[in-house]
Amino acid sequence: MSSAAVNVRPEIAGLTAYVPGLSIEEIRERYGLESVIKMASNENPLGTSPLVQEALARHAALAFRYPQGGNPRLVQAIAAHHKVAAERIAVGNGSDEIIDLLIRIRAVPGKHNMVCFDPCFSIYPIQSRICGVEVRRVPVEPDFSLNLTKLAALADENTVLVFVTTPDNPSGYSVPMQALQALAAALPPAALLVVDEAYADFADDEQASSLLAAGIDMPNVVILRTFSKSFGLAGLRLGYAVMPQALGNYYWRARLPFSVNILAEEAGLAALADSVYRAETLRVVREGRAALTAGFEALGCHVYPSQANFIMLAPPKGAMDAAGTFEALLRRGIIIRPLKSYGLPHLLRVSMGTAAENAALLKACKEIWA
Amino acid sequence: MSSAAVNVRPEIAGLTAYVPGLSIEEIRERYGLESVIKMASNENPLGTSPLVQEALARHAALAFRYPQGGNPRLVQAIAAHHKVAAERIAVGNGSDEIIDLLIRIRAVPGKHNMVCFDPCFSIYPIQSRICGVEVRRVPVEPDFSLNLTKLAALADENTVLVFVTTPDNPSGYSVPMQALQALAAALPPAALLVVDEAYADFADDEQASSLLAAGIDMPNVVILRTFSKSFGLAGLRLGYAVMPQALGNYYWRARLPFSVNILAEEAGLAALADSVYRAETLRVVREGRAALTAGFEALGCHVYPSQANFIMLAPPKGAMDAAGTFEALLRRGIIIRPLKSYGLPHLLRVSMGTAAENAALLKACKEIWA
Repeated sequence: MSSAAVNVRPEIAGLTAYVPGLSIEEIRERYGLESVIKMASNENPLGTSPLVQEALARHAALAFRYPQGGNPRLVQAIAAHHKVAAERIAVGNGSDEIIDLLIRIRAVPGKHNMVCFDPCFSIYPIQSRICGVEVRRVPVEPDFSLNLTKLAALADENTVLVFVTTPDNPSGYSVPMQALQALAAALPPAALLVVDEAYADFADDEQASSLLAAGIDMPNVVILRTFSKSFGLAGLRLGYAVMPQALGNYYWRARLPFSVNILAEEAGLAALADSVYRAETLRVVREGRAALTAGFEALGCHVYPSQANFIMLAPPKGAMDAAGTFEALLRRGIIIRPLKSYGLPHLLRVSMGTAAENAALLKACKEIWA
Repeated sequence: MSSAAVNVRPEIAGLTAYVPGLSIEEIRERYGLESVIKMASNENPLGTSPLVQEALARHAALAFRYPQGGNPRLVQAIAAHHKVAAERIAVGNGSDEIIDLLIRIRAVPGKHNMVCFDPCFSIYPIQSRICGVEVRRVPVEPDFSLNLTKLAALADENTVLVFVTTPDNPSGYSVPMQALQALAAALPPAALLVVDEAYADFADDEQASSLLAAGIDMPNVVILRTFSKSFGLAGLRLGYAVMPQALGNYYWRARLPFSVNILAEEAGLAALADSVYRAETLRVVREGRAALTAGFEALGCHVYPSQANFIMLAPPKGAMDAAGTFEALLRRGIIIRPLKSYGLPHLLRVSMGTAAENAALLKACKEIWA
């Protein structure tokens, strides 16, 4: 083997290989199932919006054209949706691309550092490591609340990014807004606070728990949002950020010009217009969250309070453990998320399904744990 | 303005802002036109494949699901198409993402360098600069042929990537395969040769001009291909590479897990299956290239020999210059590509259209240059 092929940067050599999850089809075949319920990836329980499906079919003939650089129509629509200036909106091939670019734009490898919780959304530390940027982490509290004072204490004059997810993944914990504002005010001058609000609109009171929804604007804060959850476009890869205008300017210079595909743009516009689907999504998720929380507690589980479209829980003491429960559910055609990859092998994460899917899950768990 | 928002890496501060081109709709409105012909972006003259459009409509309901990590079905189909091992196939959100990742995987900022021609596809040097990697360039020859001996002379023990596009953009020049093989053999041990064959299947004899089509395998060579041109999927963002297996392993570790969207995967599978559309595309492009080359030469232009789905030309001596010709065509509803951004303000690039579009362009140019 030529060294040209295998010589890689040390940051890359240290990465572990990504292991793709089983698809619904593979699980159906493996266990001989007729139907499979997937409550593992925080996808929308209602499927794809009918208006989005119509837009995709209507614009399928455009697939041969390059997208328009800078996604101007989509940027305008997102800006109008949140009532902020279009110059502050950045869109990306999923929030993943935006996170990666924020690191690449701001962090000088070997000099700067980033700060985040442990566990947290894995893309923050992975992309930082790929970029050769030091990762500083503080554990979440035993009850999975986030102590922002401890987080701030990790930041120094070389900290350029601080990541906080609220509601947090995988716990669903919602950080009080006042604590976020205090964190932003307390950070060293070079540190930019990235508040990942991927799940913020599922909160019982979005205005009371989201900086963006509350219209609270701070000069060193970037808000991340996504079309993957309540807008139901996970497969099309569309994330966005509201950021200081000066940073937005650099974002667009650094982003690959066509990273957001042409159908994501059309689907995003249709999803923003489909207020009926979105309102129904929020209703189903909020009601499902209350029902599943009560149902699992009635079965003896410890359920962590969640404001997201998922809940985290521990199986009842003395019953089958998390790994066993996950496997037993798989055999019954229900996919949930084991949290071993988050370093939490004793816990499970369940994405909200429809009322019928939630009921089927509770019934299956009751049998498994009996 | 807080310094948190505006402090960026010096590599980012030096980037020029991307200026989006005018859309067809904007040009229609600006000049009061009923229809606009776009021959500017090397898109497929036949539009989107009917089988692809059908697949997009059929799978629109899947938009709410995350894509499957690693794109296994698409990887298998591409491997079968080219008769290579699936472990050697990498897919990305356009070839742009693959180019960026090759640099990030292999080049240590401040230590390694990359080598390419001037002019060349702008993403090679831009992404290298974003990564903080030294860019070494040698001018193309006056006739736009590529002197690979001069290119090899720029490489040293710190060269990790060498980029060659064949057929080249914007000239259409096709590099002899023997010269590419000699280049790969002559490079220092750490240098990986990336042969961008985005346009290779448009050659009159693909087998005679493409390393991939000829089945010539070298341990330090990566071949780039794309679904944007002959497969007609520019808007969906789908590029792929055939690379040494050891490098492919690192590629998948470093790639964002869901960067290729779920409809791109379905469309790619349908495009691979639609051999009728693809054969017709190749016929229309090859015949159009011969017709436009002859037509422009008959009008007194210098036309550079092309094996791609575009031709580069200089307007006739004494006639309206390239910039004026571009503007005059715009007013008539025909968009072609001025090459000022390539440092070639005296030249124009024309993407192949349908026979009717090609004829309309020749007629318009004849009038403009009269």
